[in-house]
Amino acid sequence: MPASPPPSPIELALAEARAAAARGEVPVGAVVTAPDGSVLGQAGNRVEADRDPSAHAEILALRQAARRRDSPRLPDCTLTVTLEPCPMCAQAASFFRVKRVCFGAYDPKGGGVEHGARIFAAPSCHHAPEVIGGLREAECGALLRDFFGLLRRN
Amino acid sequence: MPASPPPSPIELALAEARAAAARGEVPVGAVVTAPDGSVLGQAGNRVEADRDPSAHAEILALRQAARRRDSPRLPDCTLTVTLEPCPMCAQAASFFRVKRVCFGAYDPKGGGVEHGARIFAAPSCHHAPEVIGGLREAECGALLRDFFGLLRRN
Repeated sequence: MPASPPPSPIELALAEARAAAARGEVPVGAVVTAPDGSVLGQAGNRVEADRDPSAHAEILALRQAARRRDSPRLPDCTLTVTLEPCPMCAQAASFFRVKRVCFGAYDPKGGGVEHGARIFAAPSCHHAPEVIGGLREAECGALLRDFFGLLRRN
Repeated sequence: MPASPPPSPIELALAEARAAAARGEVPVGAVVTAPDGSVLGQAGNRVEADRDPSAHAEILALRQAARRRDSPRLPDCTLTVTLEPCPMCAQAASFFRVKRVCFGAYDPKGGGVEHGARIFAAPSCHHAPEVIGGLREAECGALLRDFFGLLRRN
């Protein structure tokens, strides 16, 4: 029987998002990968657990990757996240100098890449990663809708 | 002899900035204060020390204050910082729900409050703190100019 292929970065990010939801966090997950696909950092939101509004999945995964690499810059790496990053995380991705940002669901309300502050297009941005949006969009969005739907019913 | 008044938040932030410069960090310092003036968090940049581009003075001071208060929201607090916050830190200040952001030097190149992404004015911003810029502007700016001047001469 052939071995099943390893999970893709967006599948790993989705797993982190599901684990975050199970902890009562807004279900967003993020993964940082090297060019060979190896995972350097992966995290789900920890805003509630850490009582820290800056503990978004992206920032946690980027920090992990930088520690793993022992370098504050990750110029060959990809950040993959289930939701369009907010302005804070988009600017962090720029500061960590990632090559590429891939995300799942678009976030017209709080996103800062394709919406709102459009961080990578702002004159205050000195490194704009390549952006790919809409990966497994339906699945990533459903996870958030289910979570907020549940909250409203409670 | 009358006791000298306690240092103001911007004086404390300047002291943190000078201490950061002495460690080889970009000299930016930040302080979070409660309405009675008590200090809940204070920090200088730790980007180099921690090899973490997200370790800006503002984020570190906000996290400290939230831990001190055991609350992720700081709705009665003021963040005072020697330099106009970047988009990452401005968005973080919004997420921590601070009442007011006071800063020293304006940063036309990297700032995200009065320049660039203008985070608090973006539709992705759901809590816009009051903003007071230009506190001890000359002193805060000179600290940065001296630091970068020294770097260029080395």
